[in-house]
Amino acid sequence: MPEQNPIEHLIGLLARLPGFGRRSARRAVLKMLMQPEQAMLPLAAALQEAAAAVQPCRICGNLDAVNPCGICRDPQRDHGLICVVEGVSELWALERAHAHRGLYHVLGGTLSALGGVGPEDLAVQPLLARIEGAAEPVREVILALPATVDGATTAHYLTDRLRPTGVQVTRLAQGVPIGGALDVLDEGTLAAALKARRVV
Amino acid sequence: MPEQNPIEHLIGLLARLPGFGRRSARRAVLKMLMQPEQAMLPLAAALQEAAAAVQPCRICGNLDAVNPCGICRDPQRDHGLICVVEGVSELWALERAHAHRGLYHVLGGTLSALGGVGPEDLAVQPLLARIEGAAEPVREVILALPATVDGATTAHYLTDRLRPTGVQVTRLAQGVPIGGALDVLDEGTLAAALKARRVV
Repeated sequence: MPEQNPIEHLIGLLARLPGFGRRSARRAVLKMLMQPEQAMLPLAAALQEAAAAVQPCRICGNLDAVNPCGICRDPQRDHGLICVVEGVSELWALERAHAHRGLYHVLGGTLSALGGVGPEDLAVQPLLARIEGAAEPVREVILALPATVDGATTAHYLTDRLRPTGVQVTRLAQGVPIGGALDVLDEGTLAAALKARRVV
Repeated sequence: MPEQNPIEHLIGLLARLPGFGRRSARRAVLKMLMQPEQAMLPLAAALQEAAAAVQPCRICGNLDAVNPCGICRDPQRDHGLICVVEGVSELWALERAHAHRGLYHVLGGTLSALGGVGPEDLAVQPLLARIEGAAEPVREVILALPATVDGATTAHYLTDRLRPTGVQVTRLAQGVPIGGALDVLDEGTLAAALKARRVV
């Protein structure tokens, strides 16, 4: 098989996706080639449709086929409650947990002195503008940022910037994950969980 | 996020591919959505191109964008030597081992009493016709069938059917693990088994 025939080309593109290597890409392509009409063309169409339709929400930064996104335009959700996340992947994870009934705000990263990421590289100003201009007053901003040094730095910075707005700022609880065995947890999590212990 | 918006639809299709679950499909879609022009549209085009161009070779049954396939039309290969394989996936595995310089013949399965697969369901007659009608006489047929009961049954059956043609029939050397599928074997083992093939 010469390189860069259509099969090798397709395998090469699939193998670039995260979680996919050449071996699994080959298996997937072979399976699809067995039924091109049922497997390949619908996938091609879905890719084109998503590429054409999906864009970042102009309010919160979520990716969706409508703009504003389905969450921002949902009247059932609490528009006075905004959960700040690092990226869309964290937003989707929270949605799968069905635990947050408010809106979101995608920062687009965290502050990083080493990585050269400053406040102007993140959607900080849009967050403040959004709170100022909100039709329904924003009561609370939940900072759902990663439990890393950069995440903590970003949370501190945002808390300072949000103080003049008078909005209550909260952050996710830290502790032992549900179902998590204590002996495989890292020391940092254990120490944090112990420090934040609560009366039963 | 409502079900069956373009993003969920795409994730659902990707998650059906072997080796892909919903979690990795989500990660892949999110990564592609970050750069739709560079990642999604080329993949869509490659899928369409492969679906349109790739078909089974009318001589050997390999999948390729040309018909007869690149292997069958390669004058550098030994046209007097045919390696019989269960499927295209095994053919590709042998090609990756760079150990076989002849042609192939894809059976499309193995005989299976339990599975109700008989000789008429496999490309047995086309193999005999191919040997009879070959411009360059076929000297040897290598049976590269799985080391399973069905594989051994199929090898026996083919040996009987090939006897009247006077072609030498060989099989892969033992060394292929019992119950092992050819397409997940490492190339070194495949190459060694091919090199040490024995007369049946």
